[in-house]
Amino acid sequence: MKTRVVAVDIRLERTTTAIIDVRGSILARDEFPTGDSANVGDFTSLLSENIVNLVENNGGYESIRSIGICCPSANFMTGCIENAPNLPWRGVVPLAAMMRDRMGLAVALGNNAHVCALGEHAYGVAHGMKNFILITLGSGMGSCIFSNGAPHLGRDGFAGEIGHTCAKLDGRQCACGNKGCLEMYTSAKGVVQTAQELLAESDAPSMMRQVEHLSSSTVSSLCNCGDALAIETMRRTGYWLGYGLANYASIINPEAIVLTGGVTHSGDFLLDPMEESFNTHVFHNIQGKVKFLVTQFKESEANLLGASVLAWQVKEYSLFK
Amino acid sequence: MKTRVVAVDIRLERTTTAIIDVRGSILARDEFPTGDSANVGDFTSLLSENIVNLVENNGGYESIRSIGICCPSANFMTGCIENAPNLPWRGVVPLAAMMRDRMGLAVALGNNAHVCALGEHAYGVAHGMKNFILITLGSGMGSCIFSNGAPHLGRDGFAGEIGHTCAKLDGRQCACGNKGCLEMYTSAKGVVQTAQELLAESDAPSMMRQVEHLSSSTVSSLCNCGDALAIETMRRTGYWLGYGLANYASIINPEAIVLTGGVTHSGDFLLDPMEESFNTHVFHNIQGKVKFLVTQFKESEANLLGASVLAWQVKEYSLFK
Repeated sequence: MKTRVVAVDIRLERTTTAIIDVRGSILARDEFPTGDSANVGDFTSLLSENIVNLVENNGGYESIRSIGICCPSANFMTGCIENAPNLPWRGVVPLAAMMRDRMGLAVALGNNAHVCALGEHAYGVAHGMKNFILITLGSGMGSCIFSNGAPHLGRDGFAGEIGHTCAKLDGRQCACGNKGCLEMYTSAKGVVQTAQELLAESDAPSMMRQVEHLSSSTVSSLCNCGDALAIETMRRTGYWLGYGLANYASIINPEAIVLTGGVTHSGDFLLDPMEESFNTHVFHNIQGKVKFLVTQFKESEANLLGASVLAWQVKEYSLFK
Repeated sequence: MKTRVVAVDIRLERTTTAIIDVRGSILARDEFPTGDSANVGDFTSLLSENIVNLVENNGGYESIRSIGICCPSANFMTGCIENAPNLPWRGVVPLAAMMRDRMGLAVALGNNAHVCALGEHAYGVAHGMKNFILITLGSGMGSCIFSNGAPHLGRDGFAGEIGHTCAKLDGRQCACGNKGCLEMYTSAKGVVQTAQELLAESDAPSMMRQVEHLSSSTVSSLCNCGDALAIETMRRTGYWLGYGLANYASIINPEAIVLTGGVTHSGDFLLDPMEESFNTHVFHNIQGKVKFLVTQFKESEANLLGASVLAWQVKEYSLFK
């Protein structure tokens, strides 16, 4: 019996690989820079080499069943990365098929929110839940809906684009072409834009004025130093986050909303105003019925565990007869 | 083998009953005024009597398997009508259990949007679809999400409350207590309020000024007479509808959005501006991928057929051992 799978988490800066067993124990892991080559073939060479080394140094191929990959803009239904704005490869990249041909193992591919939700459901704070929403708050805002115990991917695998629902008519310009997208207020870039607006609105002192390239994590840190404008930045971010999640919850009626990603590191500076705004805007039937849970996993861990779930789900031999 | 079920559609004004076979043929139907008695026992007496007559005059009990009921504010998970704002019965009414005890048959209960979606999925325009959204546009706005071939009801059976998502911050006061709820712009009452605002904004001539109690269906009729303010009313309604559905579709990625209910009778006066607004606001991944379908069923038909689907799904004996 094959008792292990290979899990891969691809991010803009670096790619993490791991060997994971049936109980979700990460037995070995490695990582390498994703690189900026537009040639995806170069990347698959690096990835294959890394996996071969990892496997050969940790028990060999005998026990490896399949490979699961987590990647931004990946579509589980097609096995392709599709027009990823935040990766070096343009157009549609059939990564699952490419890696299957290189490795001779079945490969399944999913996007961050989808895979992360699988990880939280199997081994994390959403364990055993049939209906929940997972939110990823990083440079953008994504989500995955778990419905009746399974991810809702939609007709084409594009479901969950909460970050590109309109929060404010004629609001901030989003890179997607629309205006007022929720992620322009709730993601890391939203935090920075809110901070910049606040700094421009008044002459109030703030350590944020001294920072050359303001980032969401700097704003978070300054909250802990008691910087009033930084705290106000997170309060406004929390307001919009609670507003967007209230609308989401009114539609989905989830048991819980699981928060993941860098922006959540702001803790109560973000979460308190978020819950207040959520309770103001949510439909009364849902009020008091939704738990907010923050992931307990460290970076990459949920994605790797979720990728292992994908790997267990893929048919063992069907892809490379 | 039991080859027939009883289907019931409860509305504020009247209740419709029917005998339906395995192929969705409505073999017999009847109706009676729902009445305004606050005593739900009186209503269940009337309903039971009506069903008994219908069944005895149409082949008898031998072939009847179970009963499915469609009712506003009904919760499939509990079998109860829960705090219905538009029915005479207050609080939580265990209608499924009451009717099971009276009739000696298994009874399943669902709300309008849920049951209507089951009807459209089994026998209507959503036949064979695994992922779609059904919208009910009447005095309020409700919806049901079909996910992976089954209704998504959420943790407590309250999913689909699109009408009570916030479309406009600090917008029109809704009876639910919140402000700016989408249904305050898209439902029959939204149409009337928009018309009244338009009439107050200008002195432009309009036949709407001559109508004592303006209704959504009157506005619709006046559109056909070329009344410019009536047409503008529907254009604005279509704008908000398209806006709300764009956000919904960006989250759900449905194959189709099925429109049902009185407001849809306005036809292209509503649907053209709706589609334009939808395409303006929807996330580009989804653009061009969602079909808009208007129900082909006459009033009550989709609900009765959906109630028959519920009746086939309920376990035949488990409820009244």
